[in-house]
Amino acid sequence: MMLPRGQAARMARVGVEQTVTESPAPSEVRAAVTCIDYAPEQILEQQSVERDLERFLSEHRPAWSKVRWINVEGVYDHATVAALAKKYELHPLAVEDVLHIPQRPKVDQYAGEEGQPPRLFVILRMPRLIDGHLQTEQLSIFLGRRTVLTFQEGMPGDPWEPIRQRLHLKDARVRHNDASFLLYTLVDAIVDECFPILDHYGDRLEQLEVEILTNFHRDSMFQVHEIRRELLLLQRQLRPMREVIHSLTREIHPCLSDETRLYLRDVYDHVIQCVEFLETYHELSMNLADMVNSNIANRVNDVMKVLTIIATIFIPISFLASVFGMNFENLPGEHWPPAFAVFCAFCAAMAGGMLLYFKSKDWL
Amino acid sequence: MMLPRGQAARMARVGVEQTVTESPAPSEVRAAVTCIDYAPEQILEQQSVERDLERFLSEHRPAWSKVRWINVEGVYDHATVAALAKKYELHPLAVEDVLHIPQRPKVDQYAGEEGQPPRLFVILRMPRLIDGHLQTEQLSIFLGRRTVLTFQEGMPGDPWEPIRQRLHLKDARVRHNDASFLLYTLVDAIVDECFPILDHYGDRLEQLEVEILTNFHRDSMFQVHEIRRELLLLQRQLRPMREVIHSLTREIHPCLSDETRLYLRDVYDHVIQCVEFLETYHELSMNLADMVNSNIANRVNDVMKVLTIIATIFIPISFLASVFGMNFENLPGEHWPPAFAVFCAFCAAMAGGMLLYFKSKDWL
Amino acid sequence: MMLPRGQAARMARVGVEQTVTESPAPSEVRAAVTCIDYAPEQILEQQSVERDLERFLSEHRPAWSKVRWINVEGVYDHATVAALAKKYELHPLAVEDVLHIPQRPKVDQYAGEEGQPPRLFVILRMPRLIDGHLQTEQLSIFLGRRTVLTFQEGMPGDPWEPIRQRLHLKDARVRHNDASFLLYTLVDAIVDECFPILDHYGDRLEQLEVEILTNFHRDSMFQVHEIRRELLLLQRQLRPMREVIHSLTREIHPCLSDETRLYLRDVYDHVIQCVEFLETYHELSMNLADMVNSNIANRVNDVMKVLTIIATIFIPISFLASVFGMNFENLPGEHWPPAFAVFCAFCAAMAGGMLLYFKSKDWL
Amino acid sequence: MMLPRGQAARMARVGVEQTVTESPAPSEVRAAVTCIDYAPEQILEQQSVERDLERFLSEHRPAWSKVRWINVEGVYDHATVAALAKKYELHPLAVEDVLHIPQRPKVDQYAGEEGQPPRLFVILRMPRLIDGHLQTEQLSIFLGRRTVLTFQEGMPGDPWEPIRQRLHLKDARVRHNDASFLLYTLVDAIVDECFPILDHYGDRLEQLEVEILTNFHRDSMFQVHEIRRELLLLQRQLRPMREVIHSLTREIHPCLSDETRLYLRDVYDHVIQCVEFLETYHELSMNLADMVNSNIANRVNDVMKVLTIIATIFIPISFLASVFGMNFENLPGEHWPPAFAVFCAFCAAMAGGMLLYFKSKDWL
Amino acid sequence: MMLPRGQAARMARVGVEQTVTESPAPSEVRAAVTCIDYAPEQILEQQSVERDLERFLSEHRPAWSKVRWINVEGVYDHATVAALAKKYELHPLAVEDVLHIPQRPKVDQYAGEEGQPPRLFVILRMPRLIDGHLQTEQLSIFLGRRTVLTFQEGMPGDPWEPIRQRLHLKDARVRHNDASFLLYTLVDAIVDECFPILDHYGDRLEQLEVEILTNFHRDSMFQVHEIRRELLLLQRQLRPMREVIHSLTREIHPCLSDETRLYLRDVYDHVIQCVEFLETYHELSMNLADMVNSNIANRVNDVMKVLTIIATIFIPISFLASVFGMNFENLPGEHWPPAFAVFCAFCAAMAGGMLLYFKSKDWL
Repeated sequence: MMLPRGQAARMARVGVEQTVTESPAPSEVRAAVTCIDYAPEQILEQQSVERDLERFLSEHRPAWSKVRWINVEGVYDHATVAALAKKYELHPLAVEDVLHIPQRPKVDQYAGEEGQPPRLFVILRMPRLIDGHLQTEQLSIFLGRRTVLTFQEGMPGDPWEPIRQRLHLKDARVRHNDASFLLYTLVDAIVDECFPILDHYGDRLEQLEVEILTNFHRDSMFQVHEIRRELLLLQRQLRPMREVIHSLTREIHPCLSDETRLYLRDVYDHVIQCVEFLETYHELSMNLADMVNSNIANRVNDVMKVLTIIATIFIPISFLASVFGMNFENLPGEHWPPAFAVFCAFCAAMAGGMLLYFKSKDWL
Repeated sequence: MMLPRGQAARMARVGVEQTVTESPAPSEVRAAVTCIDYAPEQILEQQSVERDLERFLSEHRPAWSKVRWINVEGVYDHATVAALAKKYELHPLAVEDVLHIPQRPKVDQYAGEEGQPPRLFVILRMPRLIDGHLQTEQLSIFLGRRTVLTFQEGMPGDPWEPIRQRLHLKDARVRHNDASFLLYTLVDAIVDECFPILDHYGDRLEQLEVEILTNFHRDSMFQVHEIRRELLLLQRQLRPMREVIHSLTREIHPCLSDETRLYLRDVYDHVIQCVEFLETYHELSMNLADMVNSNIANRVNDVMKVLTIIATIFIPISFLASVFGMNFENLPGEHWPPAFAVFCAFCAAMAGGMLLYFKSKDWL
Repeated sequence: MMLPRGQAARMARVGVEQTVTESPAPSEVRAAVTCIDYAPEQILEQQSVERDLERFLSEHRPAWSKVRWINVEGVYDHATVAALAKKYELHPLAVEDVLHIPQRPKVDQYAGEEGQPPRLFVILRMPRLIDGHLQTEQLSIFLGRRTVLTFQEGMPGDPWEPIRQRLHLKDARVRHNDASFLLYTLVDAIVDECFPILDHYGDRLEQLEVEILTNFHRDSMFQVHEIRRELLLLQRQLRPMREVIHSLTREIHPCLSDETRLYLRDVYDHVIQCVEFLETYHELSMNLADMVNSNIANRVNDVMKVLTIIATIFIPISFLASVFGMNFENLPGEHWPPAFAVFCAFCAAMAGGMLLYFKSKDWL
Repeated sequence: MMLPRGQAARMARVGVEQTVTESPAPSEVRAAVTCIDYAPEQILEQQSVERDLERFLSEHRPAWSKVRWINVEGVYDHATVAALAKKYELHPLAVEDVLHIPQRPKVDQYAGEEGQPPRLFVILRMPRLIDGHLQTEQLSIFLGRRTVLTFQEGMPGDPWEPIRQRLHLKDARVRHNDASFLLYTLVDAIVDECFPILDHYGDRLEQLEVEILTNFHRDSMFQVHEIRRELLLLQRQLRPMREVIHSLTREIHPCLSDETRLYLRDVYDHVIQCVEFLETYHELSMNLADMVNSNIANRVNDVMKVLTIIATIFIPISFLASVFGMNFENLPGEHWPPAFAVFCAFCAAMAGGMLLYFKSKDWL
Repeated sequence: MMLPRGQAARMARVGVEQTVTESPAPSEVRAAVTCIDYAPEQILEQQSVERDLERFLSEHRPAWSKVRWINVEGVYDHATVAALAKKYELHPLAVEDVLHIPQRPKVDQYAGEEGQPPRLFVILRMPRLIDGHLQTEQLSIFLGRRTVLTFQEGMPGDPWEPIRQRLHLKDARVRHNDASFLLYTLVDAIVDECFPILDHYGDRLEQLEVEILTNFHRDSMFQVHEIRRELLLLQRQLRPMREVIHSLTREIHPCLSDETRLYLRDVYDHVIQCVEFLETYHELSMNLADMVNSNIANRVNDVMKVLTIIATIFIPISFLASVFGMNFENLPGEHWPPAFAVFCAFCAAMAGGMLLYFKSKDWL
C-alpha cells in the first residue's frame, strides 16, 4: 500500500465557502461528547452530553469549576461540532481544520470570545498501529484561559482515558493546575503513544536483520522497502509535531503558564528523541538494503562458482573421452589392455588437480 | 521528454530595452478581458471588453464598486497588455515579467499610480496535467487597494471560473471583503489545483509498485525515471510557490488586510503539505528504483541457477557416456549384458543426488 | 578534460609583494582600451586609446559627460592596467584580483579617489562555450559615482557589444540613467549569456536520454560522466555569481541608485533560475546514470538468458546422443530400424517442452 | 544487535504522576554515596554515607567548605535519590530525568533552594566499551553556587576516580577554584573517555580495510554494517553532547564563572574534534562498502573468466573430436595412420591460439 | 593508511593539571628559536637564541623595534616553550594547545601581559605532501600589539622562509606595517601552500580518469578510495581553516588593523576557493567510482558474451555430431559417401547463421 489515496483530492475540495458555519452537513454518525469540570477540591464528569446538547450549552458551568474540558470524539458529526463552534465562537478557519482531515500538525491562535485573550489552537496527529499498519488520528485542541476543547477524529481506542482516570484522583498534579497544564498532559499522552510504535519498528528491523544475516530470501528487499515506506510516513507526522511542541515551549501566551512551558520542554525532549530514533531506523534500513544487495551479489557468485567448478573439471576430460571415441584406425592404446585404467587414472588425477587449484583460490 | 527546449534561450533574448512600453509587438492572438466590479450589495460583470478596450479604459468605474477585478486571459496579445499597463501605470519590469514566460514564482512590490500605496505584484505558476503530461501556466496578479489585475498565460481551462460564479452569490464571504481577500481566493484556487495532480502521481507510483512487486518488466526503471523527472519539475514549481505564499503571510503591506493574512496562513499550510507529499513521493520513487535493481539482480540469479542446475546434472554423466563411447578394446562391461541398465541407473542416481544437493542449498 | 591544470599552482605564486603597482611585468600582448562618454543628449566613443594612453589619461573628460565607461580587453597587458590603476587610484588588492586569473566572483568595496565615495568592485565569471567545451572568462568592474571601469580577460567574442550599440540610440534607457545602471546592464548581459549554455546542456541530456532508451552503448556512462563534470564546473561559477548579485541588490552604497537595485532584483531572479536549471540537470544526469546501470544489468541478463536457453535445450539431448554412442553390446534399439527416428522425435519433443517452459517463465 | 529493545517503551511509561517525590519505588540495590568537601586548604571525603543518609543530610556542612560534591553511584536506588532530592529541593522534572534512563543529553535550569540562584542541570551520556560493545552510561549533574550533585547510572568503572585523587593534591587547580570549575573537570573527564573509543573504531576500520584489500571475505559487508551501526549509535550520543557543551560555554549563569567558561571552550574544541572524527569514520565506512561491492563484482568477473576460458578452449575441439567419432563411412583420415597425431597437433594449436587471444584481451 | 592511529588516545591523556607551566617535561630535542625585530628603517635578526635563552629573555628589545617576531621551530622542546610562555604570560590553556598536537584550527583570545589588550591566539594546520602522503603541521600564532610569537611543530621545510627574506627588503610592504600585517603575511603563506597540494590531487584524478577510460584495472576502485580518503583528510583541515580566517576578517580586536582585515579578506577568498576545489574533486571522485563500477559490469558483460557466442555456436552442432556417433544401425547417411561433406557444410551454415544473429543483436 501507498499513501492513503484520494487524500490530496479530498483536501482540494475544501474551499473557503463550504466551512461549517455556513453549511453544516447533516451526518449519520453522532459524536460522543464528554464534559469534565474540575477544581482542586471537586470534579464533575458528564458523559454523552451530545444527547441533549442544546440544554448543555445553554447551562452555565458550575461556579466552583476552575477548568472545563469538553472532549468530542468523532468529528464527522458536523452538527455537533458546529453547535460547539457557535457557542464558543471558534474561528471558521480553525473549525474547517478540525473537520477536514488530514491536516498538518500546527499551532495557531485565533481571537476567541470577546473580552478573552485569543485562543491557542493546536492540531496534532497521533500515530496508531492498527493490525500492524500505521495510521494516524487527528486531534485538535482549543485552549482558552479556563476551558479546553478537544476534538478526536474518532478511531477506536482513546489515548486520553488514563488522564480522565487520573483527574478523579484528588492528589493528581493536573487537578491542582490550570487549563494549560491539561494541554500539557494531553500532548504528553500523545507523544508517549509514539514509543511503542517505534519499538514495533525497531523489532521488525532487528528481526529482518537476523533474517538477512542467516538466510537468503529473494524478497528481503521488498520487506526493507515496506518498513522504509512506513518510517517515511511516521517521519512526516513527527517532524511537524516537533515544530509544534517547540513553538509551544516558546510561545508567550496569556493562557500558557510558565510551569506548563517548563513541563512542555520535557515533552519536547521526548519528541526529539522520537525523531532521532526514526532517523537512526532510517539509516539502519538503508544499511539493510545494502546488505540485501550484497547478499544477492554473493549468491550470484556462489551459483557461478558451482557451475565453473563442475564445468572446469569435466569439460577437459570429456574432450579426452571424445578423442578416444574417434573412429580413426590405430588410435593409440586402442588395443592396449590397461588403456582404460590408465585413462581413468589420468582423469581422476586431472580432476584432483583442478580441485586443488580451486582450493588454492579459496573457491571451495 | 526533457525540460521544454529553448526556454532558457527565449529568456536570454529578453533585454531591458525591449519591454512592452517601448515596442509592443503586434500579435494575431487577442486576449480575452473580463472586468468584474463588486460590492456587498451589487455586482457587475463585463465580458470581452477587449473588443472596445479604449472606451472601457477611458470610462470611470461605478461609484458603488468596492473592488474591481480585471482578468486578462492570453498574455501573448501584447497590445492589450500594454494598454492596461499604461492605464494602470504598471512598472515596465513587472510588465516584462508578465509577458516573458516562464518566470519564477515571486512576490514583489512596485510603485503604482500616484498617491496610491505601492502595488503588490505576485507571479505564480499553476501545474496542469494535459494528456497526462505536466505543464505549468503562468499567472500574474497585481494587487492595489481597490483593484486586482490578473493575467493568465491562456491555456485551456480556467481555475478561477468557480470564483467568478461564487462572486455572484450575495452571501459569499469574498463579496464582503476587500481586494486582498480576492487575492487570497485566487491563490487558494491555484494551490487547490495541485492536489489532484499529486494524487495522479501517487496513483502512478502505487500502480508501478504493484507491477514491480508482481512482474518483472525490463523497462520498469524507465518508468521510475519518468515519474522522477516529472516530480522534479513539479518540485521546481512548488518550492518557490511556498516561498511566495510564506512571504505574503508575513508582508506588512497597506493593501493586505490582517484577515487576508490569516486566511493566507491556511493556504500556506496547504502548500507545505503539497511540498511534503512531493518529498515523500521522491523518496518512494528512489525506493522503487532500488527494488527494480534488486529485481534485475534476482532475475540474473534465477537464470544462472537454471543453467547451473542443468549443467551440473548433465555434464558429469555426459562425460561418463563419452567414456564408454571410447574405442578401446576391453572396455569394462562392453560385453556384459546388464551394463546399459546399470549405467542408466547410475546416471539417474547421480542426477537425483545432485537434485537433493541443490534442494539442500535452497536452489529449487 | 579535467579542471584546468596548474590553476591552483599559478594562484599560489601570487604574493602580496608582486602586485602590479610595484613590478608591472612588461608584456607582448597589448590590451584594447575603449572609452565611451555619454549623457542623455550626447555620446562620444574613443576606440584604441591604448595607442596613446598617456595623453588620454592626462586629458580631462568632456564637461557634458554624465558617465564615462572605460573598457579594457585583455588583462595580460599589465602595463596598461597599471597605468589605469594609477590614474584612478585603484586599490592594489583589487588590481591583483583583476590580473590574476581565475578569481572567485565577489563584490567588494575599496576606498577610491579622495573626496569620492568608496568604489564598488565586482568580479564575475562569464561561462563560454568554445568548440563545445565550457570555459569561463573573468570580467572585473569598478563602479564609481560617474565612472565605470571594466576589464575583460580577453577571449574572442564580446558580450558587451550589443550594449555599446544600444548606447548610441538616443532613446535607450541606459543613456538616461546613471553609472550604476550601466553596471546593471553589463551584469544583465553576462547572466543572459548563461541561458544558451544551459540549453546546450539540456539538449545534450535529452539526446543522451533518447540514446540510452533506444540503444545500448557501453560508453553511455562516460558521456553521463562528462556532462556531469561540466555541469559541476558551471555550478562552481554560477553559485558565487548568485551570491554576488544578491549582495548587490542589498548593498546600500552611494553609487548604487534605487532604480538600479530594482532592476538588479530582476537579474537576480534570472540567475536563480539558472542555478535551479542546473540543479535539475544535475538530478537528471544522476537518473541517467541509474538508467545506464540498469541497462548494463539488463544486458547481462539478456546474454545469460540466451546462453541458458541454448544450454538447457541441448545439454540433455547431447547426453542422450552420447549414451547411444557407447560401445556396449546390446544397446537398446541398436538393431531396431525406427530407433533413429524415435530418438529424433524424442529430442524434438524435449526441446519443444523446454521452449514452452521458458515461454511460461517469460524468458522468450 | 540492534538498538537496546524496549527503551522506547520504557520511556513511554514515564508519566507525570509517577515521579519520585510522589511514589518512590523501594529498590533492592543501594546506591553508593560519596561526599567531598573541599577548600584550598582543607579537604574531607566521606564515603558510603548512604549507610546513614538521614544523619548525613541533617548535619550542616563544615564552615570551611568552599565546595561540596555529593556523588551518587547507582540511580536505581530511588529512595536515596528521593531523599537527596528532598533535601536539596531538586525540581521533580529533573529528578524524573535522573531516574528514567535513557535521557537525551541536555542542559536546563530549575529554581533551587530559596534565596539561591536557579540550579544548572546537565545530563550527559558517556560512551563505554564493554566487551567490545558500545554502551552508554547516563550522568546527571546539578550545579549550585557551592554545591555539585552528581548521579551516575552505576556501570562498573568510574571515570571520575582520577578527579577524586587529584582533589586531594594541595596544588591541584580544581582545589583553588569554585564549584563550576568542578563541573568543567567532570565534563572534561567524560569527553576524554571518548577518544579511546574512537581509536577502537579507527583501528577496526583500518583492520577491515586491510582485510578487504588483501582477501575476499563474503561477510565483509556484514562487518562494515556492524561498524556503521555502532558509529551511528555513537553519533546519536555525541551530537547532543556537543550542543550541551556549546550552550554551557555561552550560558550566562550566576553559578558559572568566566574562567570555567574559558576552560569549557577547550572541552568544546575536543568534542567537536570527536564529532568530526566520527564523520570521517562514517565516510570511510561508506567507502569500504563501495570497495566490498566492487570486490564481489570483481570476484564474479574472475569466476566468469575461468569458466569462459575453459569453455572457449575445449568446446570447439570437443566438437571436432565428436565429428571424427561419427559413424559415417569414409570419414576423412579414418585410415590415414598419422591422422591422430595431426588431430592432436591441430587441437593444441587451436588451444594455444585461444590462449594468445585471451592474453591479448588481458584476461590472463 | 588510515587516520594516524592513537591520535585520539594521545589527546585523551591531556588533562588540565598536566599543563606545561606546572610540569615541563625535559626533552631531548631542542627547539630552534629565531627573533626578528624590525621597523621601516631597520631590521635585526637573531638566530638560535635558544642557546642562551635566559639572557635573551632578560634583555629589553631595541627601542627602535616596531614589531618583534619570535619564531619557535619544534614544540616538543617543552622547556623552551615554557620559558617563553612565562616571559610573555601566555595563558596555560593556550600553551597546552601549542604543545598537544593535533589541535583543531581555531582563533581565540586570552588576556595577555597587564596593561595590554588581550592577545589573539590562532592555531592553523598546514597540509604538507611528504613522499606523496598527506601530512599536516600545526602552527600556532600569538598576536600582541607589537609582538608576534609563532610556534611551528617542526617538520622539515619552512613555509615562512620567503617571508623572512622579504622582511630584509627595505621596500617590502610588511616592513611598513604593524604586527597584525605580519600575521596576515604568515596566514597567507600557509594558505598558498595548499594550492600545489590541490594540483597534486587534481593531477592524480585526471590521470586516474584517463586510466579508467582507456584500460580496465581491477584495482581502480582502490585507487579511487585512496584519493577519496586523502581528500577527506584535507577537507577536515581546510574547513576549520576557512572558519578561522573568516572570523579573523570579522574580529574587532585592538591588535588587528583595518588594513590587515582588508588583506585577510583576500586570503579568505583563496581559502574558499580551496574548499570549493576540494568539493569539486570529491564529486569527481564519486563519478570515477561510478565509472569503475560501470566498467566492471561492462567487463562481466563482455566475458559473458564471448562465452555465450562460443557455446551457442558449438553446442548445437556438437549435439549433431554426437547424434551421428550413435551406434544405431541404419544411421541415415552412414553409407552415403558425401555425408561427411554435407554434415560439415550444414555445421558451417549453422555457425554462420548464429554469427549473423549475434551481429544483428549488436554483440559482435
